[in-house]
Amino acid sequence: MDLTLSAGQYDLVYNAFSFVIAAMGASLLFFVLVRGSVAPRHRMAITLSTVVVGIALYHYIRIFNSWVDAFTYKGGVYIQDGIPFNEAYRYVDWMLTVPLLLAELVIVLKLGKGKTRSLLIRLTIAALAMIIAGYPGEMAASDSTSKIVWGILGTLPFLYILYVLFVELSNSLGRQAPGVIRLLSALRWILLATWTVYPIAYILPALIDDPVVAELARQVGYSVADVLAKPLFGLLVLAIALAKSRDEGYAEAGDIASAQPTNATPAR
Amino acid sequence: MDLTLSAGQYDLVYNAFSFVIAAMGASLLFFVLVRGSVAPRHRMAITLSTVVVGIALYHYIRIFNSWVDAFTYKGGVYIQDGIPFNEAYRYVDWMLTVPLLLAELVIVLKLGKGKTRSLLIRLTIAALAMIIAGYPGEMAASDSTSKIVWGILGTLPFLYILYVLFVELSNSLGRQAPGVIRLLSALRWILLATWTVYPIAYILPALIDDPVVAELARQVGYSVADVLAKPLFGLLVLAIALAKSRDEGYAEAGDIASAQPTNATPAR
Repeated sequence: MDLTLSAGQYDLVYNAFSFVIAAMGASLLFFVLVRGSVAPRHRMAITLSTVVVGIALYHYIRIFNSWVDAFTYKGGVYIQDGIPFNEAYRYVDWMLTVPLLLAELVIVLKLGKGKTRSLLIRLTIAALAMIIAGYPGEMAASDSTSKIVWGILGTLPFLYILYVLFVELSNSLGRQAPGVIRLLSALRWILLATWTVYPIAYILPALIDDPVVAELARQVGYSVADVLAKPLFGLLVLAIALAKSRDEGYAEAGDIASAQPTNATPAR
Repeated sequence: MDLTLSAGQYDLVYNAFSFVIAAMGASLLFFVLVRGSVAPRHRMAITLSTVVVGIALYHYIRIFNSWVDAFTYKGGVYIQDGIPFNEAYRYVDWMLTVPLLLAELVIVLKLGKGKTRSLLIRLTIAALAMIIAGYPGEMAASDSTSKIVWGILGTLPFLYILYVLFVELSNSLGRQAPGVIRLLSALRWILLATWTVYPIAYILPALIDDPVVAELARQVGYSVADVLAKPLFGLLVLAIALAKSRDEGYAEAGDIASAQPTNATPAR
């Protein structure tokens, strides 16, 4: 189903993709520069944040170029007559970045070797199952039974991930400082709020009759969700790593943003 | 023999190449960032891992572009009527990266100067002989005698490399910690498992009658093998270097991911 878009509609998606490229590139640069301010034992989480936004930067450059190549400007409108717009980049991106995002969250908590390994293995398997089930569903016709079946198959591991993060993990937080628990809580809610956008975008073509509106909402929705789920998520992981570094007496992390003297008591 | 591919067949290879580019770029960034966490005396192995994925990143960008340039989208299918798809990139890549991968493995073990030099020289010669013999065989017709002859000539140095790694090297591991020996064992099996993909891809055109299926299987097989043989291999070398750094009391490597205290006994 080839689309014909007004200049405004085409530019909306074009600008959304360009915005995501800028956001991913900016956070890549930021995480590389700020990494040294975190205590060495907490740097792995920041390293993973950096890799995640780097991978997303690459894929959004490809997605942007694929969007440009898919349309031709003719008689005041954009006609989709070129190479098909390639949606698969998103799934390749998620296969690489979603396990890394979950690893960031687990690693920054420093839960002990056995617990960390068990969580990493189970969350990675669940994340891959979720994404691999999503792809054939995404490619299926919007009103087909197979779209529903794959959607349900992808939702089950998603629910398992939520169970691990909101139930199992809560029982392991006894040793964390109150400030860290508050940040972790924010992190989990951002993850839940942004990840909910993906299944909504998945079922959108079945809900919205106008294929143009459905496509615009999908692409803009995915773009916003990716910025929240990767750079913003990485900033919160950084805040946790900085708070922990400060509490453990790492001087470089003492007063990143405010004028608080480095020998002050840990942040409230 | 020009191929005509459906959009799905073309995209399968296209997306596999894009996935490899993302994986090589991500591991390049990761190895650069994490290098400082390894004790200085073990950094050379990480440096070589970084160079290997950097070389592979470059070649996969070329392979990807060559794939795109070789096909034209016409009437819903991809027709191979452009510049021929350039397979030689792979052999140039392997001539540079395979000796470096073997050097990573030898160097991270710290076997003593004389032993290290002897292993590096013999493994490099064998690796180059293996790859140089493979190239004319790859270019030969799939059912020709010369394909078989070059295949056998390339297999002999491959068997010699396996002999060195699995027999000769095992006799030099007395001084390594048990955790390191376990990681090294995993490293050798990954090397054997992934390197076995290359001769399979080499003989695939002779085994599969349908040239389209043979080509897709070859390109996807090479892509998966390259991700396992380079980034995953590099991660295992990193794990060995970190375990050794930790055992030698290098604090930065103490607890990269979990809450294990830095003065703990070697990883179980």
